[in-house]
Amino acid sequence: MHEGRLTPGQLQAWALNRYYYQSRVPMKDAIILSRSEDPGFRRAWRKRIVDHDGQANDGGLECWIQLAEATGLPRKRVTSCAEILPAVRYAVDAYLALVERGTLLEAVASSLTELFASRLIAVRLDALRRHYPWLQAGLGYFEARLSQAPEDARFAFEWVCEHARTREDQELAARALIRKCDILWTQLEALYFAYVEPGWPPPGAFRPESP
Amino acid sequence: MHEGRLTPGQLQAWALNRYYYQSRVPMKDAIILSRSEDPGFRRAWRKRIVDHDGQANDGGLECWIQLAEATGLPRKRVTSCAEILPAVRYAVDAYLALVERGTLLEAVASSLTELFASRLIAVRLDALRRHYPWLQAGLGYFEARLSQAPEDARFAFEWVCEHARTREDQELAARALIRKCDILWTQLEALYFAYVEPGWPPPGAFRPESP
Repeated sequence: MHEGRLTPGQLQAWALNRYYYQSRVPMKDAIILSRSEDPGFRRAWRKRIVDHDGQANDGGLECWIQLAEATGLPRKRVTSCAEILPAVRYAVDAYLALVERGTLLEAVASSLTELFASRLIAVRLDALRRHYPWLQAGLGYFEARLSQAPEDARFAFEWVCEHARTREDQELAARALIRKCDILWTQLEALYFAYVEPGWPPPGAFRPESP
Repeated sequence: MHEGRLTPGQLQAWALNRYYYQSRVPMKDAIILSRSEDPGFRRAWRKRIVDHDGQANDGGLECWIQLAEATGLPRKRVTSCAEILPAVRYAVDAYLALVERGTLLEAVASSLTELFASRLIAVRLDALRRHYPWLQAGLGYFEARLSQAPEDARFAFEWVCEHARTREDQELAARALIRKCDILWTQLEALYFAYVEPGWPPPGAFRPESP
């Protein structure tokens, strides 16, 4: 992606599959919200749901749909989630299971992948603008995340540091972050398998029209 | 596998990862057992758990460990599940979620992949014996499944036919079977990605010593 080597069809596959992850993010944050008894924590955390769902139809999720539309996909084909890879579905569902069944500390720690997001997003925005200029109208999602991700990550990082006092809790938190990395990584591997090499989308999954 | 083109290391990766699926099968069957109020159904279904866990240490799961040992892996490395692919874990866990959260009809219908297993197992046994003769001591699992799978499948098929009376239920049953196919397929895709092409095992996952 960052080297400009993706075809339009591969970018469609990425945007369409990643939509399923995006669609589950506010549900994930609502689960975390539901697990805290601290109004201060809840107030800070609800910002994420507002950022994602917006005030009207103007949040991060809507922006992601606009990115998918900029790749040439009709909105309904994206929001139906009918053509996503089963492997992507399982990985995303494993994320919901992690925040639902782990401790609250683990749930919050699993969000810390955002610590590394802001520099990555800056690099990505630059690369997308340079290599895929026809995506320009769909880049609002990443532009908003440039400032949102570091704020969110700072709060979560401080909260985890404050609440993981024992060695055991610190290891739980670190393991939760590794599990979240696995979840993100697995989605990309499934996309690579289906749409790059060997390039075998499973039955029922999205197939690009253009190569 | 059937063409004899797998390396010993690739067979190890397969046996080690598939162990996680095998280890969850009796848990899956216990969930199904726990959901039926019909003693007749429960009696028929518990056969699966007995087949898998054995009377002592002689069931299907133990046979699978012996297959993994025949590929050259130490038992503990297999049973710890520490090196399995995250994608395999998510897919198998999605199977447990399916039988836990779907209707009992869907849970039973999802087992019907066994309808197609017995012919496949006969072909596989023949291919394994021919191409990988050093695996011979580990083939007990498949030898037992040759007769178990058709019995199990016949019972489940008749039960589904009897209980899926409306068009809606029939479609639920068919969709559950498709979902199970996705779950099996996704495991194989993850193995192929990591150990065949492009051949990139993720961090923490099993890496064969021999190529």
